[in-house]
Amino acid sequence: MSYCLAINVNRGLVFASDSRTNAGVDYVATYSKMHRFVWPGERVCVILTAGSLATSQAVLHAIQSDLENPDAEFDLRAGEHLHQVASYIGRLSQAEQQLHAPALERSQSSAEASFILGGQTADGPCELYMIYPQGNYISASEDTPYLQIGENKYGKPILDRIITPTTSLEDAGRCALVSLDSTIRSNISVGPPVELAMYQEGALEAPYHTKLTPFSPMYKSTQKQWNEGLRQTFSHLPRFDWE
Amino acid sequence: MSYCLAINVNRGLVFASDSRTNAGVDYVATYSKMHRFVWPGERVCVILTAGSLATSQAVLHAIQSDLENPDAEFDLRAGEHLHQVASYIGRLSQAEQQLHAPALERSQSSAEASFILGGQTADGPCELYMIYPQGNYISASEDTPYLQIGENKYGKPILDRIITPTTSLEDAGRCALVSLDSTIRSNISVGPPVELAMYQEGALEAPYHTKLTPFSPMYKSTQKQWNEGLRQTFSHLPRFDWE
Repeated sequence: MSYCLAINVNRGLVFASDSRTNAGVDYVATYSKMHRFVWPGERVCVILTAGSLATSQAVLHAIQSDLENPDAEFDLRAGEHLHQVASYIGRLSQAEQQLHAPALERSQSSAEASFILGGQTADGPCELYMIYPQGNYISASEDTPYLQIGENKYGKPILDRIITPTTSLEDAGRCALVSLDSTIRSNISVGPPVELAMYQEGALEAPYHTKLTPFSPMYKSTQKQWNEGLRQTFSHLPRFDWE
Repeated sequence: MSYCLAINVNRGLVFASDSRTNAGVDYVATYSKMHRFVWPGERVCVILTAGSLATSQAVLHAIQSDLENPDAEFDLRAGEHLHQVASYIGRLSQAEQQLHAPALERSQSSAEASFILGGQTADGPCELYMIYPQGNYISASEDTPYLQIGENKYGKPILDRIITPTTSLEDAGRCALVSLDSTIRSNISVGPPVELAMYQEGALEAPYHTKLTPFSPMYKSTQKQWNEGLRQTFSHLPRFDWE
């Protein structure tokens, strides 16, 4: 399992991902699930992945190959609108899954993978897309300014409480960190390090990026203060009549 | 979907349940999912239900019939240990599901239901059991002092942060309320009123019970203070270097 999320606020985009992958419970490994592609002044794309590691790695290899191949039909740098890139990633994902479909069916396995694509082209606004394993996709909106893939439930309540389009980029980043931390505490298949990227609307340059381990001062102090704050809030909740 | 949970702390037991049931998204209704059976001085049983409403209602009818039938092989009042009662509920649930299995398979429906059983017999400690749709069951323990059925993920992080065996009964009750409220905010298939019951270890009498609507002062003030406290805690989280 994985947990990745992205938030689209007026001031820009926030991306966050965990780094744990597992095949069953007896094979656990660490892989980055955040992939950044930047052409300064022209286009920024960030891709988050969840689901089958084989499928998501194959899709990223195909993206890289198409970028290096001048005869490729489409690539990450092509298409005026970001939804064309979302559609392209959906096609790559479906092609990869179908390649192995007969063998996967025989072993009753799944090669499904989900993707979040976020970024900006020179002529467009900041956008976020979630690409389903079936290759179709949806975008974030003003009413639903965040998208999640993987183990999305544990970390959703805090997003629902805090995130609106007017949330600052930094607050959205902190909220993403808390959302990841809550998930990591409750689900052993989601684990650190946590990658966090923040892209300022209109910048068209590499987003701020950091990789936080449980020993990183920012992660440790956020975790500690959040935990203490929750406990303090909890300790002041209304009493029952007899207390 | 439903969300029910029960907590076993040193001082007693807490039970909480939502009241929303639905068949698809276009038929939503309100049903209590908390059922209390009390024989003062002798035995207290509380049963929470999630999953198929038909199955859980049939199980409760069977429990009632057995209690009224002096020739019943077993009933809720029988068995020295509470795990015998858990096993009995599992048998009733499986019998009901198997009765309709052929018809259900034809319509690709599920009649699965889960139960939480908690209580105390005159000679035993407070105990909690979760009964799977397959009829087998597990108990809570000192390391895992709570059990959940239904939509259990949204409300789990706060339980993991707060609940230990030494938590007071009232704090466990408040924590259950916050856990329910977080779930209700994030999942439309879980809804009020919220039922809350609190049983003091050794009392062997009817547990405290309340039904809270979103307009109940206790629910409203808990919700408001929790939301404000989270926002305040959030607003004091560590800043990024450039802030």
